[in-house]
Amino acid sequence: MAENEVLERIWKFHDLGLERSVGLGLGMGDDAALWRPRRGYETVLTCDWFLEGTHFLRDKHPADSVGWKCVARAESDVAGMGGEPRCFLLSLALPAKSTGRWLNEFLAGVKRASRRFACAMAGGDTTRRDQILINVAVVGEVKRGHALRRDGARAGDAIFVTGRLGEAELGLRRLRKTRGMARSNDAGLRKHLYPKPRLEVGQWLAERRLASAAMDLSDGLSSDLPRICAASGVGAVVNEAGLPVATGIARKEAVRLALHGGDDYELLFTVKARNAKKIPRMIRGVRLTQIGEIVRGRGVRVRVADGKLQRLEAMGWDAFRK
Amino acid sequence: MAENEVLERIWKFHDLGLERSVGLGLGMGDDAALWRPRRGYETVLTCDWFLEGTHFLRDKHPADSVGWKCVARAESDVAGMGGEPRCFLLSLALPAKSTGRWLNEFLAGVKRASRRFACAMAGGDTTRRDQILINVAVVGEVKRGHALRRDGARAGDAIFVTGRLGEAELGLRRLRKTRGMARSNDAGLRKHLYPKPRLEVGQWLAERRLASAAMDLSDGLSSDLPRICAASGVGAVVNEAGLPVATGIARKEAVRLALHGGDDYELLFTVKARNAKKIPRMIRGVRLTQIGEIVRGRGVRVRVADGKLQRLEAMGWDAFRK
Repeated sequence: MAENEVLERIWKFHDLGLERSVGLGLGMGDDAALWRPRRGYETVLTCDWFLEGTHFLRDKHPADSVGWKCVARAESDVAGMGGEPRCFLLSLALPAKSTGRWLNEFLAGVKRASRRFACAMAGGDTTRRDQILINVAVVGEVKRGHALRRDGARAGDAIFVTGRLGEAELGLRRLRKTRGMARSNDAGLRKHLYPKPRLEVGQWLAERRLASAAMDLSDGLSSDLPRICAASGVGAVVNEAGLPVATGIARKEAVRLALHGGDDYELLFTVKARNAKKIPRMIRGVRLTQIGEIVRGRGVRVRVADGKLQRLEAMGWDAFRK
Repeated sequence: MAENEVLERIWKFHDLGLERSVGLGLGMGDDAALWRPRRGYETVLTCDWFLEGTHFLRDKHPADSVGWKCVARAESDVAGMGGEPRCFLLSLALPAKSTGRWLNEFLAGVKRASRRFACAMAGGDTTRRDQILINVAVVGEVKRGHALRRDGARAGDAIFVTGRLGEAELGLRRLRKTRGMARSNDAGLRKHLYPKPRLEVGQWLAERRLASAAMDLSDGLSSDLPRICAASGVGAVVNEAGLPVATGIARKEAVRLALHGGDDYELLFTVKARNAKKIPRMIRGVRLTQIGEIVRGRGVRVRVADGKLQRLEAMGWDAFRK
């Protein structure tokens, strides 16, 4: 199979209607894509690796999930900025034997995520490799001056998260115990296989300028909250009792997963104390929970059952530490 | 070394002045970069793999050349659209042992290419891997309606190229015969190690709307010219005698390299016959040469010494065929 044939396979999955609706004038098939930004908006740019062996296993993760997740997790960074994803570039390195059925199922997952979050495939690059390597660059938009940054948290701000934390890591554990390929419809794996970027919550916060800082939770709360604290020059206290944790397992273990589990793609954001009451319990079906407050100083601590404060070590995902 | 330390190393190489001059409001350190597009311009989006073993060899290619080339070749796609590069996302997967000196030299090459072509680093993603994997996504701009596309070539148009063809492939041959690491200052390797995207020529053509079709030559003339022909629904005849070839080797071999050698990053463009005389011999020190004409029908043929036409087989770079 020649590279042109692989490209033709990918082109078949493009969506002309979606391309036009997001402002793509020229998609795949030229040197580059042409995209028309909207007036009064800033462009949000982000990219993410998704590599066989590091981020997914070819014999465990359905190709359709790999396709969905590589797009969804890149879009999650746009959610963390309060933006709308518009289009993406898909870079794909494949073994020759994966250019058939695997590629078709993968592209079906890519297309589902693309349509679900209105983000059109604009182009990319393909090459051959003995392992499957994926890189997704997403282009989004946010109204000028409305982007949710990491550096605006101040002492006294309330800390919120969306959804439940730790469910994706729990799913990964379940997957590791599974023999052979995971089932796409296994409810216990849903959060791990098909995460949903919290785009609507991010946009709701950006529109109203209600978040003083925000980011998406990709590496785990104990690794990500310190990033907001470092960027903002503040510390934080998390209330263990208030964490929205996974159900069906021992509380202690659920708390551990909520603090350190990666891959959740929930939003973490801070809100000035006087605005905290403006944050509803749910936005578009997604639960919002206050989990603590920003404090003066440095470092993140956890308030445990007896009211004591314990230092929270960063024990989330770190590719270079493993 | 933790991922944060690798990121800090990369951040040290960023260039705040350049970031501001290209419209980057928020660069590295948040979920995503924020970039302000200019009114009346379209955004050009492209990305490129640059993988150890496939596109470079760690023991042969100086890290500085790897850094320069991964940025330059992605910018070359912007040149092929007639656009100006503005910023790029750098995705880097590294073995732990390459996070020291190799990373510093690599980033120095990235920075030189970034400054030379006024394209600022906006962010990226890092992860650990046993081989060095690089993906560069470039964001550029072109005035609305001025982009150089592949689909506008018509029968009768003159075909031009910039520079000399085949020199990069000749450099690669030389490199293969070299023992150990190549010398960065070896003149015979310059085109292979430090290609220059033909941005100024592309912009000159786009500004004047003089090219009916254009693309950058990355895979070789015999693979790339058919892409313009296919997109435009035309054929082409190349005059062997008129090819600007590498010097210092037998003519026959030089012609073979000019037809099939990859990695030149010169521009290939077509011009309506009545405009061909408006194309100067040089633009900003880069030679322009007419190499043939677009014809009705399909396929690319070469007019050889005795005037006979021979079919040109696509024998340039194809990752999936090798």
